[in-house]
Amino acid sequence: MVYVLVSTRKRVHTRQLIGNKTLKANLSKFGKSSSLLLSLMLWKSKETEINEKSFMSETITPLKDLLSDSESMRKKFELFVMKVQKDVCHELQKVEDKDNDIDGNHESANFRVDRWTREEGGGGVSCVLEDGRVFEKAGVNISVVYGTLGAPAAQQMKSRGKAFKDNADLKFFACGVSSVIHPRNPNVPTLHFNYRYFEVQDVTNDEKYWWFGGGTDMTPYILDEKDVTHFHQTLKNACDRHNKTYYQKFKKWCDQYFFINHRNECRGIGGLFFDDIDHPNQKEAFDFVKSCADAIIPCYIPVVNNNVNKGYSYSDRQWQLLRRGRYVEFNLIYDRGTKFGLVTPGSRYESILMSLPLVAKWQYCHSPEPGSKEDRLMQVLKKPREWV
Amino acid sequence: MVYVLVSTRKRVHTRQLIGNKTLKANLSKFGKSSSLLLSLMLWKSKETEINEKSFMSETITPLKDLLSDSESMRKKFELFVMKVQKDVCHELQKVEDKDNDIDGNHESANFRVDRWTREEGGGGVSCVLEDGRVFEKAGVNISVVYGTLGAPAAQQMKSRGKAFKDNADLKFFACGVSSVIHPRNPNVPTLHFNYRYFEVQDVTNDEKYWWFGGGTDMTPYILDEKDVTHFHQTLKNACDRHNKTYYQKFKKWCDQYFFINHRNECRGIGGLFFDDIDHPNQKEAFDFVKSCADAIIPCYIPVVNNNVNKGYSYSDRQWQLLRRGRYVEFNLIYDRGTKFGLVTPGSRYESILMSLPLVAKWQYCHSPEPGSKEDRLMQVLKKPREWV
Repeated sequence: MVYVLVSTRKRVHTRQLIGNKTLKANLSKFGKSSSLLLSLMLWKSKETEINEKSFMSETITPLKDLLSDSESMRKKFELFVMKVQKDVCHELQKVEDKDNDIDGNHESANFRVDRWTREEGGGGVSCVLEDGRVFEKAGVNISVVYGTLGAPAAQQMKSRGKAFKDNADLKFFACGVSSVIHPRNPNVPTLHFNYRYFEVQDVTNDEKYWWFGGGTDMTPYILDEKDVTHFHQTLKNACDRHNKTYYQKFKKWCDQYFFINHRNECRGIGGLFFDDIDHPNQKEAFDFVKSCADAIIPCYIPVVNNNVNKGYSYSDRQWQLLRRGRYVEFNLIYDRGTKFGLVTPGSRYESILMSLPLVAKWQYCHSPEPGSKEDRLMQVLKKPREWV
Repeated sequence: MVYVLVSTRKRVHTRQLIGNKTLKANLSKFGKSSSLLLSLMLWKSKETEINEKSFMSETITPLKDLLSDSESMRKKFELFVMKVQKDVCHELQKVEDKDNDIDGNHESANFRVDRWTREEGGGGVSCVLEDGRVFEKAGVNISVVYGTLGAPAAQQMKSRGKAFKDNADLKFFACGVSSVIHPRNPNVPTLHFNYRYFEVQDVTNDEKYWWFGGGTDMTPYILDEKDVTHFHQTLKNACDRHNKTYYQKFKKWCDQYFFINHRNECRGIGGLFFDDIDHPNQKEAFDFVKSCADAIIPCYIPVVNNNVNKGYSYSDRQWQLLRRGRYVEFNLIYDRGTKFGLVTPGSRYESILMSLPLVAKWQYCHSPEPGSKEDRLMQVLKKPREWV
């Protein structure tokens, strides 16, 4: 594992967003769902408005190359993940700064930005805010990796439903944005989202495959049914614009995927999860992914704002830390993304493991009292509910 | 997963050890290495001295059955693991109680004893002491499980070097004692040991296989070279009594096994690890395992006593919690015992996961300062050293 790392500590100031702001002004008359697509279209026509400052760091592929070919999904997707990363970091920083304004004496926590390149091809940008007042650990990563697929990584892909021959000579391209946000206050749920684009080429017979995957899911510690309904409704609206069957299908897939098998419980209250989206065509599949990404901020930030100033007890915090132990169990034992990452040669483990909470606990045989609020959450994790 | 659980909170009083004490008096003229073998021999001849109070709980197989056939390795091994469990719990409780005597005001933490039986066959006894003043979490488990081997579990066994045919009809028997001891003070290392006996019968062709596995290894947070040398020397002495090549071989295997591949570092300073011991014959292989088990208390308890009253800083504690995060990574991602356990139908996940620390931390991109004591430990974890 050899990579070149450039690290900066960065506050996402609004003045760094000049390019996007202009863009947003232009876009305000359009609906939310189409804004990302339009930004990409506008980027092409107004190339001068896109520069390195539009993102959290320099892009992995030179920006000029990314803007040079509007037909390449690889390039479109890299621009897309860079934009999602910037937008989410910007929103989180605003929340972190706002809470800080209450007493105004402290310098608030900022995102650390690490741009790394991979000897084998590609690289990534990791943005991590740690030990903040609102966010105990929040990471938003993008990565663009390509090369030859090793046997263990191919095996991970196979379990996603792609059956490649054992002796196939495979080239791959993977680009994605991935985030886990662990707030400090146990009243505020943890959020996870991940959107990715894959291409695999079987060099033996020159067959090419592409697909999108992704999802957004939430892990509360104290259940607030209104918040959970808002979260699911926002995701459902994003799905419904593309296919009326998607929400039900991907909600169910999410409950099945984020499942801690040995404990027979879900990690959280679900959301969306999908893999292998290669229909009806590349453009429409990408449009759906963009709608999902557009829903990240509206599904989650209101939930943060609703709860961030609620008080909590010592035992609420202890319960949150125990549930974070379960989060670690899921991510290290079952999560295919983590496994795929850790066996991909030259991948950066610090970026993969930023999903782990700052602190977690394991207490032997902990079991919440029947009827307690902890128990009420467990009922939902043991038996996923329909929220909308 | 259906199991019957009987739970008690238990202090290991010396008066519960009457049977063993008499035995020990009789054995005092013999060398340490042969004491366990002799106890088993004496147990047979002095049946009245062995009763349920000799152990932390009732045995899994009825005691009368266990004492009825001195030729059966299954039975001898179950008695052996029950005895190791009792001896280790007893020693740990003594340390916990002693430290408590300093101010004398607090009731000290005791082992919780859970005896569980498994619908599919067998069961186990888990002894866990949590949130003590010396031991933040200490678990000593025994388990006796048997039945038909499922495909995932067979796969785990295969990676231990046993190649069973894919369509083989396999019956298995596994009995072991397993322990992880996480002290509170960062000056005191974590200890892990595990000794096990396996039998697999291929029903298709009636072939039988048996083997022993096990090891003892230590994970310090602050390196004390004298302690590490003592630890390795004690293990080497145990090996040397049986085969002069064992220590080098199993020390190397330990460094290779307890390796966190994605971080390119060892979990701790090693010790012994072996698998597939089926030579020179069953009796001598078991004698070797017993010598290793006899070394557990003398290799570790002096290290605890040397360090338990040393002071430590906030940053020492933070460093310990970060290293405990690495411990979690190893156990959940790489440890075959954990994987084997979690995929074995009817296994008890609380017993398997008692190995996880009470608290662990993950800080993004933490890197110790060159030349610091944290860095000195890392040098050893990056490049295992010869200690004796």
